[in-house]
Amino acid sequence: MGLPAVVLSSGGLDSTTVLALARREGFELYALSFDYGQRHRLELEAAARVARAFAVREHVVLTIDLRRFGGSALTGDIEVPRPDGSARIGSRIPVTYVPARNTIFLSFAVAWAEVLGSNDIFIGVNALDYSGYPDCRPEYIEAFERMARLATRAGVEEGAALKIHTPLIQMTKADIIRAGTALGVDYALTHSCYDPTPEGLACGGCESCLLRRRGFREAGLEDPLKYKEPKTP
Amino acid sequence: MGLPAVVLSSGGLDSTTVLALARREGFELYALSFDYGQRHRLELEAAARVARAFAVREHVVLTIDLRRFGGSALTGDIEVPRPDGSARIGSRIPVTYVPARNTIFLSFAVAWAEVLGSNDIFIGVNALDYSGYPDCRPEYIEAFERMARLATRAGVEEGAALKIHTPLIQMTKADIIRAGTALGVDYALTHSCYDPTPEGLACGGCESCLLRRRGFREAGLEDPLKYKEPKTP
Repeated sequence: MGLPAVVLSSGGLDSTTVLALARREGFELYALSFDYGQRHRLELEAAARVARAFAVREHVVLTIDLRRFGGSALTGDIEVPRPDGSARIGSRIPVTYVPARNTIFLSFAVAWAEVLGSNDIFIGVNALDYSGYPDCRPEYIEAFERMARLATRAGVEEGAALKIHTPLIQMTKADIIRAGTALGVDYALTHSCYDPTPEGLACGGCESCLLRRRGFREAGLEDPLKYKEPKTP
Repeated sequence: MGLPAVVLSSGGLDSTTVLALARREGFELYALSFDYGQRHRLELEAAARVARAFAVREHVVLTIDLRRFGGSALTGDIEVPRPDGSARIGSRIPVTYVPARNTIFLSFAVAWAEVLGSNDIFIGVNALDYSGYPDCRPEYIEAFERMARLATRAGVEEGAALKIHTPLIQMTKADIIRAGTALGVDYALTHSCYDPTPEGLACGGCESCLLRRRGFREAGLEDPLKYKEPKTP
């Protein structure tokens, strides 16, 4: 059995690819997900499916209630903006804007890593597709890593070098899909849509669906996900 | 009304002094406490009393379940070691060892600060009395601050300088008590004991009680707290 690694897993395309990459490096997988009032329980169901598919050693879902800090600015019920500029008036789908999100998620990963005696944390941040988010940039990750090494007893006493692995950080969506497909990832398990139907079908038109579909198209691969709307060529 | 500041508040002597220092600097106080399976609910009751006494603008208590990462290493039921080397056999009081504790607490404070539009976070870490904890050292705090400035939109777009204030970091317990007393802190509100009686009286003999009592003695001040054991001169 390999060394333990904590992998942040949302049930989405990116973090599922990260699980595959961590497994390829020989790590024993500990998957960490968060229930923070997501727009859809489907995301956590996908995370559970993915964890089973990868036979992770342990899958922990932590509940954190960020809505306590004030509803509308966080995971409150607001409309999902659509790429054409329109909004789904009246749909009131919660959008998950979570301040300091990666910092909170990584902090819990550091805690679990310390308990496990692990020096390896994986996160599927991407600086290309999400360049608007400050906490997806390489300089943020480096600063977090440096802080975390100073925070823990292991880092101080044993000189252990905690590492935040970000294998996707400079990859395009097509690169990610190609890499995961080469490692046998079943992307039918993953969940990407911001605005799924009540039956759980991806809408096909939200920003996340469009990004995913373009990624498959550019990778020259078939997206195994079922969409509500007919796929455009 | 002053600028908003998020103050980590445990209901203990140190963080209550920090509230007084932040108030003196003119900040509007937002107190943040955590329910993470503490040894005693008394700690959270003290935090609520203190928040009322300071008339903070808002007091948020977040529940985080770190026991999910494995019971005994964290806030499990283990015995409280006593300074004389004995242990209270059979008392099975939970000891709160929380890995990456300050990192997790500060991460939530950063999230709240971002929602409030605040650049000021206060934490009562102390490098003298708790020199064994890596996450109480100035170099850790500086690394966290640097990371947090890179993590948030405000830090990137507006160049706002998020500041982690650690007013106690180089103070002795006696210094802290003197400073708080000068600012009118009622230390009878605060809770320090690791091993209180069922009625809520401080034991007087655990490491935290001894540190507190020595602090008052060195400051030449009377500790207003009631103890189970008669105070030693």
